[in-house]
Amino acid sequence: MPLNDYNRDQLITEARKLTETFRRFQDANLKLDLTRGKPSTAQLDLANGMGPLLLEQCFLEDGTDLRNYGGLDGIPEARKLGAAMLGLHANEVIAADNASLTLMYLYVLWAYHFGPLGAGTAWRDEGDVKFIAIVPGYDRHFSVCEEVGIEMVTTPFAEDGPDIDVIEELVSKDSSIKGMWCVPKYSNPTGHVYSSEVVDRIAALGRMAGPNFRVIWDNAYGVHDLRDNPPVLANIMERCRHYGTEDFVVQIASTSKITVAGGGISFLGGSKPNLDTFRKRLSIMTIGPNKLNQQRHVNFLKNFGGLQAHMRRHAEILRPKFAMVQQHLEKGLGGKGLATWSDPQGGYFVAVDVRPELAAEIIRMAGEAGVKLTPAGATFPYHCDPEDRNIRIAPSFPPVEELDLAMQVFVNCVELASVQYRLKEIGG
Amino acid sequence: MPLNDYNRDQLITEARKLTETFRRFQDANLKLDLTRGKPSTAQLDLANGMGPLLLEQCFLEDGTDLRNYGGLDGIPEARKLGAAMLGLHANEVIAADNASLTLMYLYVLWAYHFGPLGAGTAWRDEGDVKFIAIVPGYDRHFSVCEEVGIEMVTTPFAEDGPDIDVIEELVSKDSSIKGMWCVPKYSNPTGHVYSSEVVDRIAALGRMAGPNFRVIWDNAYGVHDLRDNPPVLANIMERCRHYGTEDFVVQIASTSKITVAGGGISFLGGSKPNLDTFRKRLSIMTIGPNKLNQQRHVNFLKNFGGLQAHMRRHAEILRPKFAMVQQHLEKGLGGKGLATWSDPQGGYFVAVDVRPELAAEIIRMAGEAGVKLTPAGATFPYHCDPEDRNIRIAPSFPPVEELDLAMQVFVNCVELASVQYRLKEIGG
Repeated sequence: MPLNDYNRDQLITEARKLTETFRRFQDANLKLDLTRGKPSTAQLDLANGMGPLLLEQCFLEDGTDLRNYGGLDGIPEARKLGAAMLGLHANEVIAADNASLTLMYLYVLWAYHFGPLGAGTAWRDEGDVKFIAIVPGYDRHFSVCEEVGIEMVTTPFAEDGPDIDVIEELVSKDSSIKGMWCVPKYSNPTGHVYSSEVVDRIAALGRMAGPNFRVIWDNAYGVHDLRDNPPVLANIMERCRHYGTEDFVVQIASTSKITVAGGGISFLGGSKPNLDTFRKRLSIMTIGPNKLNQQRHVNFLKNFGGLQAHMRRHAEILRPKFAMVQQHLEKGLGGKGLATWSDPQGGYFVAVDVRPELAAEIIRMAGEAGVKLTPAGATFPYHCDPEDRNIRIAPSFPPVEELDLAMQVFVNCVELASVQYRLKEIGG
Repeated sequence: MPLNDYNRDQLITEARKLTETFRRFQDANLKLDLTRGKPSTAQLDLANGMGPLLLEQCFLEDGTDLRNYGGLDGIPEARKLGAAMLGLHANEVIAADNASLTLMYLYVLWAYHFGPLGAGTAWRDEGDVKFIAIVPGYDRHFSVCEEVGIEMVTTPFAEDGPDIDVIEELVSKDSSIKGMWCVPKYSNPTGHVYSSEVVDRIAALGRMAGPNFRVIWDNAYGVHDLRDNPPVLANIMERCRHYGTEDFVVQIASTSKITVAGGGISFLGGSKPNLDTFRKRLSIMTIGPNKLNQQRHVNFLKNFGGLQAHMRRHAEILRPKFAMVQQHLEKGLGGKGLATWSDPQGGYFVAVDVRPELAAEIIRMAGEAGVKLTPAGATFPYHCDPEDRNIRIAPSFPPVEELDLAMQVFVNCVELASVQYRLKEIGG
């Protein structure tokens, strides 16, 4: 029965029952965590074979000693791997150290201060600078903008990706908008996969945007499918080539959620002018990445086929967890009008939209019952979810049994908070 | 006999002989390189044992899984190692990835745009920003300033470090000077070790400098001694504590020339306010360093004692090379008034000052004879050596036999260029 059909007495009875359950959870002194999209121990174990390099593996065919300085672009085989992940040529990709976040941060910071194409293109020289933030989105993207001093304009999701009509209007009318964050496949946290039409229209945006606009195409979950025959993301660079907007998109990926989260390798891909400018900045900051770590990755994953096979092993571990989240949400909240949620086919998150004004309260309650959730508002710029509705669930890290328990707590908190709110609403 | 005592005929005879030798070198099609301070293969081999980690070594005592995300400050044991290298407490040190250059770049860039102590302290808000560049110095330090937009004011060396009288005067008179690069032990390229008095007076500078001045104390060669009973560098932070100038100095070190040049770990150390501000910026850019690589280092080096023992093995490889450079310089150029040079007790470089207006020419000639030298002017800001005298020799990388040959070429080029110049001078 939908919550709104409950009368006052039924709500009071319901609240009492739910409170009892909530107290039991409290008494159990749980310590569960659904906050960060971290791989689980079992997933990390998949890459235990990656460790050692034989001495002869420390040299490239051309004699390059990977232990020594140099090689700003990363080793050729690592660049190839990144290129396959991003749908680019190897010479369009720089392979760097752990943390694609670092590459994105540097790209935006440098574009702001030094210009995406060098002298005369610095965003800051054009006055106010804005970015489009598709919401809900990835908190660390938004933090980069805040840090650098870029104002964010939010845009909602539509069915098949961001609402591209809204974006087209924003971009064509406001030339102070200099960029946009996109997680095009299994978007964080909603799980959206951008449709081919959306990808195409984003590539075409480059013709209506002001100068030096950059889409940061963070393909963080490009190979993180949960099921066979996964959705296929259109190749944005191909579409950009069609429209002559190759400089308009900068692509990002990493192996953080493929091999080891804290010690993977990352990739930045783009047109030659974009890469040349980025490389010029990078050469001031470093002599080169950790080539040994790149070689470890290449030795272990071999090639893109090997990488995909490895990802199927991740999927086997993650699939039951994502299924369990859906079961709990469906069983506990289905048909009650308490929440809507995504059912992603990959990636690391499930987004739950509860009734307005309840997300913060539910997260607070879950915390009291021993389940840590991502702070309310984290998926919005400036930590401000205007309707206070969105909660991000990250099911990857806890073992299945813990996830089971945590989801029971979560569902209980959603129900209890909603019933209490409804009671107040009808004057109870 | 000093060159200036040669008469015209003697000079012509000498030039003929030297040219013959030069041609022989040219005909030999040499390909030798004395440019970069890279460790040799034999030195890199010293760390071949550093490779693999057992699975149980991927966890800290508190259960932290080093393979996963997190740990912005680096792992405790790595911080301890860095602290020992820098003469600090472990909580005064952040352990990061390969490349101390990256830490220095970020420190300066962030201080310029965001302020060394956050809001209200940004250098750029104070108008023109200058740095003191002690010359000759490290080209990559100077490149950072150029990139960020910081003007450099040069200061010469004295016997026991930089000319501190000049620095005191500059700093007390010009509050737009916001920083200074120092390589306090075995300075690149001269090999100077700052005396205790100089260290003390640098620490005291903090009381006369304008607000938010920072000394970037790049102790790149702090443990890179060639001989037993090496010179001891005074602990600058101790002196700063004495003067109440703890925020005035930021210390840097790395293991790049200890373990593997492209895959070491780096350290940034300083006062709590400095570290807190830096950490705040860093947290936007990365979730944490490659902790596995830090653990590899800790496992391999064990502790500071282990690190020092390891450095003695480096010294055994480097000592004959540095000795060979001195022999060639002494034998080939001694007593002729053609050049002066340093005889460093550690580090990676030998600085040779030839006669004015000859450095670029000698480097060009050596290149023609197959010996690559660091480009003229590289050791000065804006690549401009006002007297065109300084040449940096990096003897670490080539095998001894190659170094032997390269130094013969070098000495020949110095002699030949000097004789030719002298001939012109006296109207020959």
